[in-house]
Amino acid sequence: MSELVMRAEKLDAADELRGKRDGFVLDEVVYLDGNSLGALPAVVPGRVEDVVRRQWGELRIRSWEESGWWTAPERIGDRIAPLVGAAPGQIVVGDSTSVNVFKALVGAVRLAGDDRDEILVDATTFPTDGYIAESAARMTGRTLRPVTPAEVPGALSGRTAAVLLNHVDYRSGRLHDLPSLTAAVREAGALAVWDLCHSAGALPVGLDEHGVDLAVGCTYKYLNGGPGSPAYLYVRRELQDRFDSPLPGWNSHTEPFGMRPAYEPASGALRGRVGTPDILSMLALEAALEVWDGVPVEGVRAKSLALTDFFLDCVAEYVPEGRVECLTPVAHAERGSQIALRCDDAGEVMKRLIERGVVGDFRAPDVLRFGFTPLYVGFADVERAARVLAETLSLA
Amino acid sequence: MSELVMRAEKLDAADELRGKRDGFVLDEVVYLDGNSLGALPAVVPGRVEDVVRRQWGELRIRSWEESGWWTAPERIGDRIAPLVGAAPGQIVVGDSTSVNVFKALVGAVRLAGDDRDEILVDATTFPTDGYIAESAARMTGRTLRPVTPAEVPGALSGRTAAVLLNHVDYRSGRLHDLPSLTAAVREAGALAVWDLCHSAGALPVGLDEHGVDLAVGCTYKYLNGGPGSPAYLYVRRELQDRFDSPLPGWNSHTEPFGMRPAYEPASGALRGRVGTPDILSMLALEAALEVWDGVPVEGVRAKSLALTDFFLDCVAEYVPEGRVECLTPVAHAERGSQIALRCDDAGEVMKRLIERGVVGDFRAPDVLRFGFTPLYVGFADVERAARVLAETLSLA
Repeated sequence: MSELVMRAEKLDAADELRGKRDGFVLDEVVYLDGNSLGALPAVVPGRVEDVVRRQWGELRIRSWEESGWWTAPERIGDRIAPLVGAAPGQIVVGDSTSVNVFKALVGAVRLAGDDRDEILVDATTFPTDGYIAESAARMTGRTLRPVTPAEVPGALSGRTAAVLLNHVDYRSGRLHDLPSLTAAVREAGALAVWDLCHSAGALPVGLDEHGVDLAVGCTYKYLNGGPGSPAYLYVRRELQDRFDSPLPGWNSHTEPFGMRPAYEPASGALRGRVGTPDILSMLALEAALEVWDGVPVEGVRAKSLALTDFFLDCVAEYVPEGRVECLTPVAHAERGSQIALRCDDAGEVMKRLIERGVVGDFRAPDVLRFGFTPLYVGFADVERAARVLAETLSLA
Repeated sequence: MSELVMRAEKLDAADELRGKRDGFVLDEVVYLDGNSLGALPAVVPGRVEDVVRRQWGELRIRSWEESGWWTAPERIGDRIAPLVGAAPGQIVVGDSTSVNVFKALVGAVRLAGDDRDEILVDATTFPTDGYIAESAARMTGRTLRPVTPAEVPGALSGRTAAVLLNHVDYRSGRLHDLPSLTAAVREAGALAVWDLCHSAGALPVGLDEHGVDLAVGCTYKYLNGGPGSPAYLYVRRELQDRFDSPLPGWNSHTEPFGMRPAYEPASGALRGRVGTPDILSMLALEAALEVWDGVPVEGVRAKSLALTDFFLDCVAEYVPEGRVECLTPVAHAERGSQIALRCDDAGEVMKRLIERGVVGDFRAPDVLRFGFTPLYVGFADVERAARVLAETLSLA
């Protein structure tokens, strides 16, 4: 037995989150694509069946009240809150990440005031954030300026209204310094808007602690909410009364069933709601979040780093030097919960990896991306993934 | 046996859609709230279970391609198309109705050009349309002018950019004249945007035939898609190349997986997409739409009118004169698929009706609303509803 296999055994034996794997539906595949779509939590199918057959099928319209459908967006927001370091009452679930980026960024610009005419956006961001930021800038009469996160401090000025940043780069897996960037943005009198898609559920975020103004995130990656499960919007409590949504649908009205012709926004997080929430997807997410009961985010982060450290060790041991290039920073402070490896034939390599039961994903033109979900990925999985990767690379 | 009971029996016996009722999960309740939340189609629970357990649970990320998740918004749009008189390739499913109203109205204003500075909105509309229209006007620098549908022809001018109208008034059940209003709007050089929430699945719409420019609708009423199932957006084919969405998310990019920094909109209906679609709700809707196989919309309309006619006859026979006032027009050309009755103690009356197994809904301050879903409501249901209503009113 190789030294790495033995190390994997020891690490698995000492893993305090090991039991959480039983909370998921898994098979013999090594699933390292939880940063695209989380695995199915075992509690979800039964819950969804109840929502469909009993809540919709039998109670029908009564479920809006009796089954708690109407208040689901705030209730589920409060369930996500501790995972991102937010006190209750600041997160609401609903709509897609893209739609929430629009709400957050337009809201931020309006909070910043009319004399600030520039929006900074992470130039390395997941594209949708950039596209939506362009629209938000156009529709609020601001200028959009793409900069790298490292350039943000130098780019801030009295003109800056808001800065949209990604906590973890979706491609490289680089973790950005949320505390210091947020402090710099706020110091300049601008609003800090963070996209947490690739960090929530994988590492501590500390929204309240670090004074983040607004944030958005998806729930189908490390939060395992299911394909296209609703995203969320965080608006810091002190800003909520002045938050002015560009999508003031009836669900955010202070008296939604008053059916009044004039819009009067509700107080609190639910001001971020828009239209009727998609209950099936939302209640599947609510069930999925139960796997987090009793799980400290710090423990998740520790295991995530141990997993990615171990993967890098295995790759160094198994893969011939120079065959791949690691794009993810080695420093823990700069690493999310994924490892991105560059190689010329990445598309073909990933196809073969998947055929051999190691599922990561390919990002054009040349990136192999492996996500490590601490709740259900173990160290033996990691060793196997690296070994199969090395075999695949030597055959390719 | 009363004459009305006998008439109900005859009408049910002659009802060509009668067999469709078996396609739904129903019980002894008379469910007249399908215009809020359609009943559960029998095919849905099994389909959702497959989506959750096999597509998500076993195939996981592969389902985006192998289970047709990625193309669901356009595919399901094409399934809705014949129900609203649209040729394929013009409807995309996703997001809430409110979000789609925003896309449609901002898109319409941009299509109308810079010299048209006024938006007309149905003053009697469901409130969210008015709130969102206000935001669309504010964000495009236009003036919003609420008018009743009857006032629209007189209010149109060279200033009018777009007109947002409801096909059926959610409160009174009044059906507006889509063909002639659309013609008037287009004659004035403006764009006609219709909200079909209370008409699609209950009566013919004829989007293509009547030259409607853009339209939106929900799918959880007469289309039985489930609580908060995704809404849809129609953009007339000739306008698609110039449609300029205010929510240009990555799902509407011409090459979404190219992850390019610059936005380039896709062609066709999918330009109306935004972010990742909520697959659970969307595929439940897709299953729900199967009940429409072989159902002609004209037959649905004929039965809908027969149901509401019969309900009015039963109410006239059973309910003491003057106890309620019908707000829904008697003329077929002006009637949707619901009957709204005004009475002072409507809230209390509806509560008692529901206790006695007749489910409609209450709209503040004084409206009893009864929706008639031709696919699963029968004439005996109608007679019973009116009889229980009369008994309840005489006790109240």
